[in-house]
Amino acid sequence: MDLIATLSCSDQPGIVHAVTSAILECGGNIIENQQFTDVPSGTFLMRTRFETARGVNETKREFEKKLTAFKPSITIRERTRKKRGLILVSKESHCIRDLIYLHEIDELPIEIPLVISNHQDLEPLIKNQGIEFKYIEVDPKNKDLAEAELENIIKNLEIDFIVLARYMQILSKEFSLRYAGKIINIHHSFLPSFKGAKPYHQAFERGVKIIGATAHFVTPVLDEGPIIDQDVAYVGHGANLDQMISLGRDVERRVLARAVRFYAEDRIFIVDNRTIVFH
Amino acid sequence: MDLIATLSCSDQPGIVHAVTSAILECGGNIIENQQFTDVPSGTFLMRTRFETARGVNETKREFEKKLTAFKPSITIRERTRKKRGLILVSKESHCIRDLIYLHEIDELPIEIPLVISNHQDLEPLIKNQGIEFKYIEVDPKNKDLAEAELENIIKNLEIDFIVLARYMQILSKEFSLRYAGKIINIHHSFLPSFKGAKPYHQAFERGVKIIGATAHFVTPVLDEGPIIDQDVAYVGHGANLDQMISLGRDVERRVLARAVRFYAEDRIFIVDNRTIVFH
Amino acid sequence: MDLIATLSCSDQPGIVHAVTSAILECGGNIIENQQFTDVPSGTFLMRTRFETARGVNETKREFEKKLTAFKPSITIRERTRKKRGLILVSKESHCIRDLIYLHEIDELPIEIPLVISNHQDLEPLIKNQGIEFKYIEVDPKNKDLAEAELENIIKNLEIDFIVLARYMQILSKEFSLRYAGKIINIHHSFLPSFKGAKPYHQAFERGVKIIGATAHFVTPVLDEGPIIDQDVAYVGHGANLDQMISLGRDVERRVLARAVRFYAEDRIFIVDNRTIVFH
Amino acid sequence: MDLIATLSCSDQPGIVHAVTSAILECGGNIIENQQFTDVPSGTFLMRTRFETARGVNETKREFEKKLTAFKPSITIRERTRKKRGLILVSKESHCIRDLIYLHEIDELPIEIPLVISNHQDLEPLIKNQGIEFKYIEVDPKNKDLAEAELENIIKNLEIDFIVLARYMQILSKEFSLRYAGKIINIHHSFLPSFKGAKPYHQAFERGVKIIGATAHFVTPVLDEGPIIDQDVAYVGHGANLDQMISLGRDVERRVLARAVRFYAEDRIFIVDNRTIVFH
Repeated sequence: MDLIATLSCSDQPGIVHAVTSAILECGGNIIENQQFTDVPSGTFLMRTRFETARGVNETKREFEKKLTAFKPSITIRERTRKKRGLILVSKESHCIRDLIYLHEIDELPIEIPLVISNHQDLEPLIKNQGIEFKYIEVDPKNKDLAEAELENIIKNLEIDFIVLARYMQILSKEFSLRYAGKIINIHHSFLPSFKGAKPYHQAFERGVKIIGATAHFVTPVLDEGPIIDQDVAYVGHGANLDQMISLGRDVERRVLARAVRFYAEDRIFIVDNRTIVFH
Repeated sequence: MDLIATLSCSDQPGIVHAVTSAILECGGNIIENQQFTDVPSGTFLMRTRFETARGVNETKREFEKKLTAFKPSITIRERTRKKRGLILVSKESHCIRDLIYLHEIDELPIEIPLVISNHQDLEPLIKNQGIEFKYIEVDPKNKDLAEAELENIIKNLEIDFIVLARYMQILSKEFSLRYAGKIINIHHSFLPSFKGAKPYHQAFERGVKIIGATAHFVTPVLDEGPIIDQDVAYVGHGANLDQMISLGRDVERRVLARAVRFYAEDRIFIVDNRTIVFH
Repeated sequence: MDLIATLSCSDQPGIVHAVTSAILECGGNIIENQQFTDVPSGTFLMRTRFETARGVNETKREFEKKLTAFKPSITIRERTRKKRGLILVSKESHCIRDLIYLHEIDELPIEIPLVISNHQDLEPLIKNQGIEFKYIEVDPKNKDLAEAELENIIKNLEIDFIVLARYMQILSKEFSLRYAGKIINIHHSFLPSFKGAKPYHQAFERGVKIIGATAHFVTPVLDEGPIIDQDVAYVGHGANLDQMISLGRDVERRVLARAVRFYAEDRIFIVDNRTIVFH
Repeated sequence: MDLIATLSCSDQPGIVHAVTSAILECGGNIIENQQFTDVPSGTFLMRTRFETARGVNETKREFEKKLTAFKPSITIRERTRKKRGLILVSKESHCIRDLIYLHEIDELPIEIPLVISNHQDLEPLIKNQGIEFKYIEVDPKNKDLAEAELENIIKNLEIDFIVLARYMQILSKEFSLRYAGKIINIHHSFLPSFKGAKPYHQAFERGVKIIGATAHFVTPVLDEGPIIDQDVAYVGHGANLDQMISLGRDVERRVLARAVRFYAEDRIFIVDNRTIVFH
């Protein structure tokens, strides 16, 4: 059995020793192991992948026994039990296309039980790929309705996380908090610059030489959640607004796909308003 | 004679033809030529390097004759007549070191008649390199005094442009306007994000994955002038604040050196609040 | 009418003047213009996009009249008359997917009348996108047969250029020469390193820290044709061979798409064994 | 006491547990810890930095006691006991300048007891920085003489490693083997391409769009040793040979400085002909 365990707790001597004791007790052999002590917050973080003949539950009991003193949060997951992602889109297809493509060629270890959109434009594209699609209208005056429907679906389909693949709706504070650390958004510029609407217009008028994209977790404060990944593309003065947007799309889809993969592989930890990502 | 001409005017048919007529009239042979029409502002920009037996003045007269109808701004300069840069520093040496080093190995076609600082820390380093150094104290209550002294020096030494190589003083509105388009600053982060003090602290707390630097012209609005060049370095979660700052220094010195070289070679045009840079 | 003209000839005074005379004569207004003198070969190159009320033929005559003395090669094309590309694939889909995607969202100004493969694996994918697909078996002992069929298709479908989007067959010397400068290949590594088979295996064993891709024109000498574009991705020691290949795929599809776009927009000139690309 | 321990051995269960037992036994607190199992070679590698009240020798005994069964190679070093590097240069200054600069501002934790050159050109520059310089002539017919002198110096000055900062001499097979894994070279191109002389000329004629640099360990096979770090710069068709070389210098100095820092901080492991670098 190929297991991935993650662990976080206050930093103190003996944690790694306790973890490895537990793994040894289970006859486990470590395949990958990464750990990090975040000094500003005094937090110890660890991700371990190991093979063992024991099951998830038994292993988890062993971890809890050996680690009680450290009061850690622990997750243990069978690697082949892929996380189930609900993908929300609007009208633009570049991000969802890359996710589906990478999923199809087995480079994105997630399940995609459903894609939801507040528009019907992408329905043929999604269904064409053999993926379920659902149109949920968002009434600006009554957003709660749409979010209530989302929550039902999340429960019924046993969704583990949500990807906003250019979903142009702002989620409510309540919704953001309920799924804290489980909603990944792609922002079409460098955060924290060019917040709000029309970031490319702002960037163009400012004559930037670099276009960026930021994948981050959603929090109640718009575009201020922990950053997961960022990347850039260079842009010359010859690029008009459309070309800037096109370049931006290219960066966005790469950054979002990477962030989703990190999440799918349990590589991301949130500490304060930052992330630790074990690449 | 190896000449560099720059030209900007409202876009209209026949400009290139008129320029090449003028060059042909002077028996000139074009070595490099770049031109660009900035659509949002309707501005035509051109940089031409050519060889001719005629002198600068004669060539300029020919240009003016042929181009009268277009009401252009024209500059013509002998390539070997290097621009004279005044470099202002504070206590940090990374940017000035790279400028001096590139100058020394003949990759930065400028003259450096003087380096000025509001601190004495870098005096030995600068003088060691055979470059003049002057300490000008800046009294926070009376900044005009220091700026008056700067202006005198600029006149006396026939300075063409000013480089703020990590000069931590804010120049007055009057000074910024007087030398508009002639003062290059390096900003230790991406503009327009993380404005103001302690940008690295802000970036660290936000957990950014990319550190950037921006070279821009100084305008009366702090850190809002036209961007000349930008670059980035990737930063992992393992980097503490000091390492982020160190990475940032590395990007800063590269970006500033590049911006100064573009300026020295007449490659930068300012349009609205943007730059066109002929790389 | 929106025209793109390209021109190359021996460098000498007066060329730009003659071109702009011709354009002026046609009442043309230049929108974009780039020119370059390649010093090692003494070649002058120019790409001009301009609007005129005249047609392609009339404009071309005007160009030829004004430029006779320079003996240039000239092409003039209506911008909306897109080039027709024949895409050859084998079993891997990453490159063709990106080309089709960019084509669909109007970022790749080409027509794709047909995709050909020596395998049937990608047929459903291609047809699903509404693009014609043809399976042409390649008999290793009789490659001429397949190439003869290709040539027929090229004629009948009025193909302008060929893209080898991970087509794993080596074209004959004759075929390469017949379509010199018209066949774009993507190579899964930096040329000229790791030539031949299994480049990723070679790269992995060598422990490279960077994975690259190179788009180049096909010549009779395998993998030695003029380079159009190159890019890289950083790879850590944690990447196994599969992850290296996956990273490589990501670079390949980006570089090939860019090279095809440059070609589609008449931005590439071949001089000796190099390319000049007006980005 | 701030210690850095490195460990490598055949991969098997229980190693991390044994290491952490030893550290716990010494009352140590882990500050940084990285480990990696290299699957192709079945090698386990670990770098741990920890604080302890015990000394180096006592800690090492504890490690050896707990780890006997795994037959590991272990190094333990006090972090403040900096490694002593001998830097060899020829005539070019860009790499040595950056090393000295970073050393001076405390970003390169090494000691530089001596710089040696086979030319006298850089003597003033080096001495100016307060660093010892020695000129050792290399007689092409009798290279052994120079190498014998080098070996004496290495012993007398207790040198830990050697940096070839653009030292244009090929070291003998014997010398390379004697200091295997201790000589860092910077190669002015991507290995394994453009081997041998005049790589930039080769790269220019091939019209490459990217210039790279590779830092690697020296082995008896020229330019074929394990790669430590690589980086690139983008180059346009406008760059002539000199500009390519200048861009290359910029990449070289960055890559070499990074490789030396990795070495100085015990971050590099050699496995087969590859390196594992804990960034």
